[in-house]
Amino acid sequence: MTEIKVLQKVLASNDALAQSHRKIFDQNNVTAINIMSAPGSGKTSLLEKTIEKIKNNKKIFVIEGDIKGNLDAMRLLKKGADCIQINTQGQCHLDGFMLSQALPKIDLSKVELLFIENVGNLVCPAEFDLGTHYNVMMLSTPEGSDKPVKYPLMFSKADLLLVNKIDLLPYVQFDFDNLEKSLKKLKPKLKLIKISCKTGEGIEEWVDWVLGEIGKRRNRR
Amino acid sequence: MTEIKVLQKVLASNDALAQSHRKIFDQNNVTAINIMSAPGSGKTSLLEKTIEKIKNNKKIFVIEGDIKGNLDAMRLLKKGADCIQINTQGQCHLDGFMLSQALPKIDLSKVELLFIENVGNLVCPAEFDLGTHYNVMMLSTPEGSDKPVKYPLMFSKADLLLVNKIDLLPYVQFDFDNLEKSLKKLKPKLKLIKISCKTGEGIEEWVDWVLGEIGKRRNRR
Repeated sequence: MTEIKVLQKVLASNDALAQSHRKIFDQNNVTAINIMSAPGSGKTSLLEKTIEKIKNNKKIFVIEGDIKGNLDAMRLLKKGADCIQINTQGQCHLDGFMLSQALPKIDLSKVELLFIENVGNLVCPAEFDLGTHYNVMMLSTPEGSDKPVKYPLMFSKADLLLVNKIDLLPYVQFDFDNLEKSLKKLKPKLKLIKISCKTGEGIEEWVDWVLGEIGKRRNRR
Repeated sequence: MTEIKVLQKVLASNDALAQSHRKIFDQNNVTAINIMSAPGSGKTSLLEKTIEKIKNNKKIFVIEGDIKGNLDAMRLLKKGADCIQINTQGQCHLDGFMLSQALPKIDLSKVELLFIENVGNLVCPAEFDLGTHYNVMMLSTPEGSDKPVKYPLMFSKADLLLVNKIDLLPYVQFDFDNLEKSLKKLKPKLKLIKISCKTGEGIEEWVDWVLGEIGKRRNRR
């Protein structure tokens, strides 16, 4: 089937770009984190909270991916973050080519922590390596705990799973035992942090994870 | 760019399949409804409620689209619906080719109402016409009211918008004025029904819409 071959070619050239971007991040001592989730899980809210907590401590830059509009970038600029918006014009994910157009516009020598907020989608973003050091996946409680069974690639590519909107647990059906059971099959050692971007619960643990990973990477040099 | 040309070819052959499927539905007096939303918005819960309400009145069949697994199909079988599961094996949407493999397995002469539950995704499903008579889009309140600005194609392709999980309105930020403002720009006459699959609120209005559209189509013959 033609489309499959083309997809393989697209993925191969994407992987090559991802490798070169990873090198650029390393050369500039930038820790890069790709944040992925379904639409409306709370990626931008997480970044708002994160910027508030560590902008005086770490130099942060955010690349915002959306099909259209710049609503999220505007929210982060208000919080005092440096930010670029990529509009994918219909594409359902960010890819290496889009990133190659954005990176030259950023002075990476002045960045310590680069967040990339991917397009809200549980499928395609998982297929396109962006050269980031970490993939962080966010699942919000109203989406339900059955998602790893339905979207296994996304969960298997994650280095960290944030379960957001735990403030809604009294009002939604979300079964942590069921989630953990399916994660055990898919990715047994996946670290999970429960958070609420509304109440702030768990945000400290997430920030500690981010700062800890930056420290580990620095020590490996 | 090669990938764009391939995409155009894929979409052109999909459109041809959609036309032929629409004819097959019409020949069999089947009303076909494509249901689309982000992951976890409540498509399967809606179908559970709908089946309960009208299975004694209308002959219903459901085609379930998921990347992997058959959790949703199992839920609907329990409610007494006839159901087929399509596993897209990584593809982020249903398309005409997948449907062409499923339809011969269904005795359409015994079906009045065919629901197709698409893969949970706010992007690609909107690009692939399935030959259904209606596209119903579901947005749940925890996802936020900013989605039409970010995912305009999906909203512009919808014939009906269901805003689900209104029982969560006291606990989430969801601005109906903001939603209606952006819909006015995008698709001014889009009908909107507020529902809660949990409490049952609005389900009667949704079922009335479905039965009303079946009636209108019958009268046009």
